[in-house]
Amino acid sequence: MRLEELGEFGLIKQIAALIGEPSSAVRVGIGDDAAVLKLAGDGHLLVTTDVFVEDVHFRRQWLTPAQIGARAAGAALSDIAAMGGEPIAIFVSAGWPPSLEAETATELMAGLARVAGEYGTALAGGDTAASPGGIFIDVVVIGTAGQPWLRSTVQPGDVLLISGSLGEAAAALALLQDGKVANAAALSPALQERFTNPIPRLSVAKALAEGGAVTAAIDISDGLVQDAGHLAESSRVAITIEADRVPISPRCRPAAQQLGADPLQWALTSGEEYELLLTVAPALVQQAAELVADKGGITLTPIGRVSEGEGVVVVDESGEPLELSTEGWNHFSPSPPTHCL
Amino acid sequence: MRLEELGEFGLIKQIAALIGEPSSAVRVGIGDDAAVLKLAGDGHLLVTTDVFVEDVHFRRQWLTPAQIGARAAGAALSDIAAMGGEPIAIFVSAGWPPSLEAETATELMAGLARVAGEYGTALAGGDTAASPGGIFIDVVVIGTAGQPWLRSTVQPGDVLLISGSLGEAAAALALLQDGKVANAAALSPALQERFTNPIPRLSVAKALAEGGAVTAAIDISDGLVQDAGHLAESSRVAITIEADRVPISPRCRPAAQQLGADPLQWALTSGEEYELLLTVAPALVQQAAELVADKGGITLTPIGRVSEGEGVVVVDESGEPLELSTEGWNHFSPSPPTHCL
Repeated sequence: MRLEELGEFGLIKQIAALIGEPSSAVRVGIGDDAAVLKLAGDGHLLVTTDVFVEDVHFRRQWLTPAQIGARAAGAALSDIAAMGGEPIAIFVSAGWPPSLEAETATELMAGLARVAGEYGTALAGGDTAASPGGIFIDVVVIGTAGQPWLRSTVQPGDVLLISGSLGEAAAALALLQDGKVANAAALSPALQERFTNPIPRLSVAKALAEGGAVTAAIDISDGLVQDAGHLAESSRVAITIEADRVPISPRCRPAAQQLGADPLQWALTSGEEYELLLTVAPALVQQAAELVADKGGITLTPIGRVSEGEGVVVVDESGEPLELSTEGWNHFSPSPPTHCL
Repeated sequence: MRLEELGEFGLIKQIAALIGEPSSAVRVGIGDDAAVLKLAGDGHLLVTTDVFVEDVHFRRQWLTPAQIGARAAGAALSDIAAMGGEPIAIFVSAGWPPSLEAETATELMAGLARVAGEYGTALAGGDTAASPGGIFIDVVVIGTAGQPWLRSTVQPGDVLLISGSLGEAAAALALLQDGKVANAAALSPALQERFTNPIPRLSVAKALAEGGAVTAAIDISDGLVQDAGHLAESSRVAITIEADRVPISPRCRPAAQQLGADPLQWALTSGEEYELLLTVAPALVQQAAELVADKGGITLTPIGRVSEGEGVVVVDESGEPLELSTEGWNHFSPSPPTHCL
């Protein structure tokens, strides 16, 4: 079977099955936003890797080299936020076409290093190789966490919360894919900022981690419904998302109108939004929202609930299930998915 | 300037200059076999990343998928040995062509996981993406070390030692490149084993780290002369290698004869040999050799000496400098280097 038939998650399952038991230092291996290692002493070490491939995850016609680096750093740091952790060092392995202008490589790395610095961490190493194809970069972030947030610890009865709002990254991507704008510089300032400089929700995570209310978490990198599905599958619970409570950014509405697109569909399926999807016990929802509002004015919105069972369902205001045209994206799908760059 | 003109080390210097000061947790960043992080508690965390690109680092005509994975794991683990450390977890980010048979991907990962298991560690995560070009894999190894061996701490007066012997990997590669054998399976058993299953010298490192005699170390991945040059440059010392003391494996001589090649040239320039190049104070050379001989029968051979000054010189038995046709390899050189797969 070819990979485009098996799909990304099919391959990951086959690889995970091959591997057997991790060593005693590995508390959480494949299947979360980051791996969790337990070393001597208090706390846990987090390790996450994110690979970005030219013409799969980014296009050089749309983004400057510095923007490509900044997006990659933001996305990788978001995985540390999704574990309730803090980053301590970033490593980048890259493949570059030999004919590439050296300036392109250094600008990309400088964009990445700038974002690392903004979140209190630094580039600490990596590797460099020639690539006969396009550019690729693998961003490795090492972080720490007291009690890491897993995907597998959602409890029936929990409330599902999301940070910020969804749809801006989807709007930017749709405008680019449709040819309505030639590159990211031609987007409106708000969409451009969101698209070229995604914010890993590390300050939200830090505030919540200190409060101790979160039972489980993931970041929105595959799409809300699909990422909720990862939580449901890992925790063996059912998740209901109430569509009318999903916070859609008003800034994505003009693009939706221009393109005849449904902003709700964007909010439910857009990856690369990098908001946090969290579960919290009902009694602690108010406390969690206040902790986050105090730190930077980000809103936490309850958008659903957890029950015994399995799977994810999205319901309208009368409680009827909605049909979705797609649940997210598959890295090996033969045609470009809706939120692949 | 294009990367093929600037070269790998030129690019790394430009990137390192952009980055500024690492955070306080990063004790050693760019410029050693692995980065060193200092966390709370005793000991140090090591992080190394090694990227392997199809038709740059490996060819699928020469190696089975499992052999490609095993080689990648061995090479990445060798960087932990070069820091005097022990591996605790491996992460692999990979790019796969969508049309690839899924079996190829899973066999490659199984080969990698097998080697990880042989050295007491395990695959603990990673990332997976489509690659419009060929396969690439980035292998990240996390390890620990009490007092990591750096490249920058060679002392004038030290003796230069090498583990094992050199030339077998060079012989295997030369036979493949010359078309004398069609693939690794057609090599003699000894060359095949060395080429498809390189041994990271972790047990040598462990024995020596406990003894505390080593002042600095690197593994042979760019070639003896070039890797000695990394030690000399980092430590601001001069290194003299005595050609007639360099241990050349007798198993590479038949291939050298067949190809009309000079085994000494192979031993001085072949990368991917994965032996350890160490410096030790003269009074501790005997003790170091005994420690290693007790653990697995590997020989440590003195091959040179360190003095004040700079650079690397290779001398013959009368002390006259030898001329070398090449000092190693450059990942961005337009034509394939002699020890690129």
